[in-house]
Amino acid sequence: MSELRQDRTTGAWVIVAPERGRRPRQRSAAAPAPDRAPEPEPPCPFCPGNEHLLPGIVEEVSAADPPGWCVRVVPNKYPALRPELAPQPLHAPFHTALEGYGVHEVVIESPRHRADLDSLSDPEISAVVGAYHRRSLMLMRKPGIEAVLLFRNNGRSAGASLRHPHAQLVALPLVPPRLRAMTDWARQRHRESGRCVTCEELDIERADGRRLVEESAHFLLLVPFAATVPFEMWLAPKRHQAGFAEAEAEELADLGVLLRRALARLKAALGDPPYNFVIESPGKGEEGAADQHWRLRIAPDTVIPGGFELGAGIPINPSKPEDDAAALRAAG
Amino acid sequence: MSELRQDRTTGAWVIVAPERGRRPRQRSAAAPAPDRAPEPEPPCPFCPGNEHLLPGIVEEVSAADPPGWCVRVVPNKYPALRPELAPQPLHAPFHTALEGYGVHEVVIESPRHRADLDSLSDPEISAVVGAYHRRSLMLMRKPGIEAVLLFRNNGRSAGASLRHPHAQLVALPLVPPRLRAMTDWARQRHRESGRCVTCEELDIERADGRRLVEESAHFLLLVPFAATVPFEMWLAPKRHQAGFAEAEAEELADLGVLLRRALARLKAALGDPPYNFVIESPGKGEEGAADQHWRLRIAPDTVIPGGFELGAGIPINPSKPEDDAAALRAAG
Repeated sequence: MSELRQDRTTGAWVIVAPERGRRPRQRSAAAPAPDRAPEPEPPCPFCPGNEHLLPGIVEEVSAADPPGWCVRVVPNKYPALRPELAPQPLHAPFHTALEGYGVHEVVIESPRHRADLDSLSDPEISAVVGAYHRRSLMLMRKPGIEAVLLFRNNGRSAGASLRHPHAQLVALPLVPPRLRAMTDWARQRHRESGRCVTCEELDIERADGRRLVEESAHFLLLVPFAATVPFEMWLAPKRHQAGFAEAEAEELADLGVLLRRALARLKAALGDPPYNFVIESPGKGEEGAADQHWRLRIAPDTVIPGGFELGAGIPINPSKPEDDAAALRAAG
Repeated sequence: MSELRQDRTTGAWVIVAPERGRRPRQRSAAAPAPDRAPEPEPPCPFCPGNEHLLPGIVEEVSAADPPGWCVRVVPNKYPALRPELAPQPLHAPFHTALEGYGVHEVVIESPRHRADLDSLSDPEISAVVGAYHRRSLMLMRKPGIEAVLLFRNNGRSAGASLRHPHAQLVALPLVPPRLRAMTDWARQRHRESGRCVTCEELDIERADGRRLVEESAHFLLLVPFAATVPFEMWLAPKRHQAGFAEAEAEELADLGVLLRRALARLKAALGDPPYNFVIESPGKGEEGAADQHWRLRIAPDTVIPGGFELGAGIPINPSKPEDDAAALRAAG
């Protein structure tokens, strides 16, 4: 059973999920991953024909070609949170904790084991982004859910336990502290200036140009001014929209193509680095808010954080955002 | 030149330090560390006889045996922040940034290249902890410094670029957001209950016992209720004291011995895992505060974080704190 526990001395939350310890490819305590020989690949549960290894199928997007689907959504076999648990208090009165209520799903992005997101066709990537959007909406509507996080881990050192292309969604019974802090910050800035701080930032970046990588019909692709890691990129909608749920069909199709181009640039510039991406969208109740503005954030995993980052919560980026943006523009 | 940049859309800070890109052993973008063959060791700048590779020596603790010192403090050759820079604003009016003013030092904990902290004698570990304490105090007194972070990275996947035993200190021109949030949280809890929340927590943990690992004359060693990673441990002073600077000589000697025992337990339980530790102590002006309480936090690096942690700021711990504490007690 998993639990959401709060540290009473700091207010920080953690998910304690002992079942996750049985995942393949977790960094072993006894022999850390970086020094370990590659393991043989077990049969891939995401490949067509291995459906018996899946805990179920939530939905799929059908395709004309075999195996008859291009995108599949399945429950995570090692969920961090579980829908059958109740969001009820535990460990009272001394400590604050909740049973690990929530939903953890996987979006299988292609039937092809070695497909990369940047190799998908326009209709394929559109189906992928459409599934991200649809499942985000569906999960946000579930009772007791306050926020949905969509993310993708690519490469073992970025936390991926399976190579087969996939993203994940976690629906949470609380707004995670990082999203909450972002929401509060943007609200405060809006109170001061009367403008959405992200709309303002996109205007500044478009005018400045040094950190801009590419502009599509509906999105800007840029390296943020305070990038936390080398080659961090944001895809942000040019039209003001608070949450990812508000993106419309035409914008989603545009997002898919720009995301594919962003990942292709990353590969051309850095040679297929491990990376995470995450859609940063505010929690429930912020739909249509004038002061919130979602983004998709790509964070290549090329720097090893240490005790400084752990203690300070300030990343050290050994690369200049302006230089990274120039390299990404040239890699187009 | 390094910069402290603030993200105007989130309020988060980052240190942009291009010089750090020239460090040895950074995870390479083109070929991520986990799949790379081990490199040959270059001459170690921390070993006796290689002083020409050091940028200088700040202080040393002398010893009767050759090479005549047991602990040395030196400037970091690849500093995240630099004392010769001014904490002046950059990039105005659109963005908020400061020149990367600060100090970045290294505590070389032994002249022996392969010594582990848990193999040091009582006087040796006492000299190490004494140097941590003395340098923390000295750096906090420098003009323009608001907080000092002492941390240790052990093992390549925990961010260590050199094997020779060492810790680091970074003195910052601002209180890092994580420390600021902890300070504010503890202040608010103190307002509500009239007690130091950490003193209260230590009472609860001592009475409960399930997460307690060991108690010394002056410290508790425990696995925190909301441990963020498997086998996380805190060493917290039993006597109320706001900052690490307030620890007295007898307490420091006790801390050294308990720290050595904690690391030995970790090694016995997990087989020498990579880890970080950090002293979490409030910023300038909190000396003697009734509502603050420092700790030393040890975080083994056995779990690979992914996009969920990046986006949510909520760690997923695949291990139960109570089970980890039992294993650590048994490993004594």
